[in-house]
Amino acid sequence: MNFKRFLPILQWAPQYGRSQAASDLVAALIVTVMLIPQSLAYALLAGLPAQVGLYASILPLVIYAVFGTSRTLSVGPVAVASLMTAAALAPLAAAGSPEYVAGAVLLAIMSGLMLTMMGILRLGFLANFLSHPVISGFITASGIVIAASQLKHIFGVQASGQNLLTIGQSLILSIGDTNIPTLAIGAGALLFLMFARKQLKPLLIRSGVGARSADIITKTAPILAVLVTTLVAWQLGLGAQGVRLVGSVPSGLPELTIPSLDSGLWQQLAVSAFLISVVGFVESVSVGQTLAAKRRQRIDPDQELIGLGTANLGAGFSGGMPVTGGFSRSVVNFDAGAETPAAGAYTAVGIALATLFLTPAIAYLPQATLAATIIVAVATLVDFPALGRTWRYSRTDFGAMLATIILTLAHSVEAGIIAGVALSIGLFLYRTSRPHSAVVGLVPGTEHFRNVLRHDVELCPKVTFLRVDESLYFANARFLEETVMDLAICEPELKDLVLVCPAVNLVDASALESLEAINERLKDAGVRLHLSEVKGPVMDRLKNTELLSHLGGQVFLSTFEAWQTLTGHRKPLEKTA
Amino acid sequence: MNFKRFLPILQWAPQYGRSQAASDLVAALIVTVMLIPQSLAYALLAGLPAQVGLYASILPLVIYAVFGTSRTLSVGPVAVASLMTAAALAPLAAAGSPEYVAGAVLLAIMSGLMLTMMGILRLGFLANFLSHPVISGFITASGIVIAASQLKHIFGVQASGQNLLTIGQSLILSIGDTNIPTLAIGAGALLFLMFARKQLKPLLIRSGVGARSADIITKTAPILAVLVTTLVAWQLGLGAQGVRLVGSVPSGLPELTIPSLDSGLWQQLAVSAFLISVVGFVESVSVGQTLAAKRRQRIDPDQELIGLGTANLGAGFSGGMPVTGGFSRSVVNFDAGAETPAAGAYTAVGIALATLFLTPAIAYLPQATLAATIIVAVATLVDFPALGRTWRYSRTDFGAMLATIILTLAHSVEAGIIAGVALSIGLFLYRTSRPHSAVVGLVPGTEHFRNVLRHDVELCPKVTFLRVDESLYFANARFLEETVMDLAICEPELKDLVLVCPAVNLVDASALESLEAINERLKDAGVRLHLSEVKGPVMDRLKNTELLSHLGGQVFLSTFEAWQTLTGHRKPLEKTA
Repeated sequence: MNFKRFLPILQWAPQYGRSQAASDLVAALIVTVMLIPQSLAYALLAGLPAQVGLYASILPLVIYAVFGTSRTLSVGPVAVASLMTAAALAPLAAAGSPEYVAGAVLLAIMSGLMLTMMGILRLGFLANFLSHPVISGFITASGIVIAASQLKHIFGVQASGQNLLTIGQSLILSIGDTNIPTLAIGAGALLFLMFARKQLKPLLIRSGVGARSADIITKTAPILAVLVTTLVAWQLGLGAQGVRLVGSVPSGLPELTIPSLDSGLWQQLAVSAFLISVVGFVESVSVGQTLAAKRRQRIDPDQELIGLGTANLGAGFSGGMPVTGGFSRSVVNFDAGAETPAAGAYTAVGIALATLFLTPAIAYLPQATLAATIIVAVATLVDFPALGRTWRYSRTDFGAMLATIILTLAHSVEAGIIAGVALSIGLFLYRTSRPHSAVVGLVPGTEHFRNVLRHDVELCPKVTFLRVDESLYFANARFLEETVMDLAICEPELKDLVLVCPAVNLVDASALESLEAINERLKDAGVRLHLSEVKGPVMDRLKNTELLSHLGGQVFLSTFEAWQTLTGHRKPLEKTA
Repeated sequence: MNFKRFLPILQWAPQYGRSQAASDLVAALIVTVMLIPQSLAYALLAGLPAQVGLYASILPLVIYAVFGTSRTLSVGPVAVASLMTAAALAPLAAAGSPEYVAGAVLLAIMSGLMLTMMGILRLGFLANFLSHPVISGFITASGIVIAASQLKHIFGVQASGQNLLTIGQSLILSIGDTNIPTLAIGAGALLFLMFARKQLKPLLIRSGVGARSADIITKTAPILAVLVTTLVAWQLGLGAQGVRLVGSVPSGLPELTIPSLDSGLWQQLAVSAFLISVVGFVESVSVGQTLAAKRRQRIDPDQELIGLGTANLGAGFSGGMPVTGGFSRSVVNFDAGAETPAAGAYTAVGIALATLFLTPAIAYLPQATLAATIIVAVATLVDFPALGRTWRYSRTDFGAMLATIILTLAHSVEAGIIAGVALSIGLFLYRTSRPHSAVVGLVPGTEHFRNVLRHDVELCPKVTFLRVDESLYFANARFLEETVMDLAICEPELKDLVLVCPAVNLVDASALESLEAINERLKDAGVRLHLSEVKGPVMDRLKNTELLSHLGGQVFLSTFEAWQTLTGHRKPLEKTA
């Protein structure tokens, strides 16, 4: 049983049949065609040699098929993780240098270890700290930074930078060196891919192709761009005219790679590896859950951590880069009919064959083409309407989102995501630190108590009833103290104060001490503190504390009982108005 | 009006009369006698020359009398802030060196600026992030570290270290160099002060002295120890026998001090200044609130920030060290009958006179005596029973407390407090990230819905009612998705799912997106999502969103209405059992 939890392959492999194999093979073929240019492009984006992208698309896919719980998730290099890899490695070494490649391998290994450990310890909830607006803002801003970082390849110039400001500055300074043949290839590929994305699909549908097939054909446009520009570059000898090509790629399968054991390097990369892990996991799980739900399947987030973690370990030990579940590829895999994770394993075979036999051709592939595929791919990540939606719905969420976007664009991806998380948590704590509370009075003729500000209710000057609509914990403990003491001071005649607690789901140790302090201070001021409608589980805990033995007043089961006892009215008041 | 908020002195000075002045003067006299040894001792603890402690007890008290809202808080150097000052400055310069003193001045200025800004921006809620168990653990551990750090003065040896491990190691290595006259003075003072604290008060009470006077006399014991040991040291020429004395202290009032403008230094000290500010503020406010409540007065925490902030600015510009409201001194001030903050201003005059005329005598004061007063004072900070109480009440709070204590003892005060805060927040988010939820069914013969696991209720296989007992926000958005989708997958016949929301006080943007995702995924799975009992303010917000227009089902005012509509039973079911 536990075996099946940790090895999800046992849940489907025993019943694996011919019809499933057929579906999986078709999906794998389409995904392979899509993944070849993507893995080359994302290696370029991460500043790594092209083969690293291919290596990261072989072993990890096989491992995920064994340990992953999503039936259709397509694991491999993705845009945002590649940008984060580049950002993490930039301070360490020159892009493409052996130290840089070793850094990417180490990032994959560390990310793998972190994810696997988090899965074993069931720490998947850590991903909850990334609120949706922060994730959305982060991905939008990352998309913009990624697109900007690829413009140098389109123009064929040297430029660098980790954020929009430095990239932009660097581009402006070097734009005079634009290489015309490169620009022709790059702009051509860009226009073709944009056409394919925007116009090709409706065109195909109008020509009678089914919507789903049209979609899949459209998504394979990048391979066409790659084929055509590679041929052109080879035929016209564009390499000699200053067009930067991918260049010679070692042919053959990846070999076992031993990661660096330099503890200084591990420390330097720890935060980056953690952020790559968490961001990748969140993206992966939301894609996986969306697709699984369409077939009433489910994924197990804690096991997903293990699936992605082992996949990253596989990536690292086979000389690859950090991987995660990609959105567009997974959708294509799903739409193309993949039924089991075996489709991923077949895709791995496809990429392995490409690594064995296609590398001589890849040497002629212009980098501008890859840059164009990246720009078109990340354009879908940028979601400006989300800013408006969030603004209209919640200003606090919008604040966290905007801070994430601005810091990601103007400083770095890591600063952006950390600020977003800190701000989300801070704003949430701020919101709950000033909970809604109301002085309530008796609705005449009933046993109900309502807010005195909104309803016409009976009051008693010597007894105040205060209802708090939030769990009591450290962030609002002080607020509670202030609210209660202000009430006690404003009503000099006050003799009894009843805290009405039906909405209090939790009283933590800080709030307990605050209640004890409130009780003592009220005693000093000659006021008795009472509690009413305390929930069962909260009462169970309070029973063992000194609060109840030192309580100036009593604990009432119902607020009405407190009213009867404290005001001396034994019966509900008659309606007077 | 606003004037009175920012200048609380206007609230009491206009009515200030002779009887108040008499009370305030008596209290000031007693507090002065207590504050002289304390300010010298805490300067020693912070590694600063003795006069710095005196300077910090003059101008800040006058300023707090103008800007503070507590009538009885006694501001000045305190133990924990002095320890934190020492910890912050240790990496910067040798204790007592001009750079070190300049660092203390800068810490006071920065802390003053931070507190004042927080007050103006009404950021007092930031102090809420320090949960009570974390504060309590931190103060206990700080007390232990402080006491340990003073042992070297009792033994008259050289030792150093910022935590219990390094201090202990350093002490053990140097214990062979113990100076016997120093030990005699130190141990003598320690025993006398312990006697005064434990036995003198009951003795005085038995001799017919009133309880309150006995308490105050007891609290002035340190000045007696100071007088006697100073005389002994002077008469016997102990300085020549290796007893370390306070030494010559410049006589005269403090002069205007210009803080360093070195931006590197500001950056280095920023975190420490912030921590000293927040810890000091929390201590101060809780003392102030406790005392104010006894007289049905109130303090304004945001104005307290301004009061403490300006007091610290005063401390810095007059060559002092960070100050805050001290617990024991404030209690003495209160018990001695202080009625207005003028008592603090009179105390400042007392300390100023001491600075002018007593410094020649202070030169003969043994450091061992001051160390003894520190050890006895911080002994009251150590609260081990709080560990047991917290353990019994809440394991999560205990975890945060223990981590704070261990890190403070074994690493540093800053690591301790930061870990405690991070852990408190993390544990709270974890608790709310898995809220209580229940599938509910109709109680036969009523319109009430209860948990199916606890009550004998009616169910309908095609309709599930899920009640969530927590606000929906980013930390539990994913949990909600998983809970709902698991329900949908486990019940293959399910056609309708009703989310019962009476306990949902908030739906943030993340939870909104989760609800939208749940809605879409349920649609894909052939299930309609309904909502019931959505609270007014939550509904107001949801009205402007796409969730409601795309909702597969409906929004019902009551869960019973949903039951009638979806199950086709138009009337309450008759009780069958």
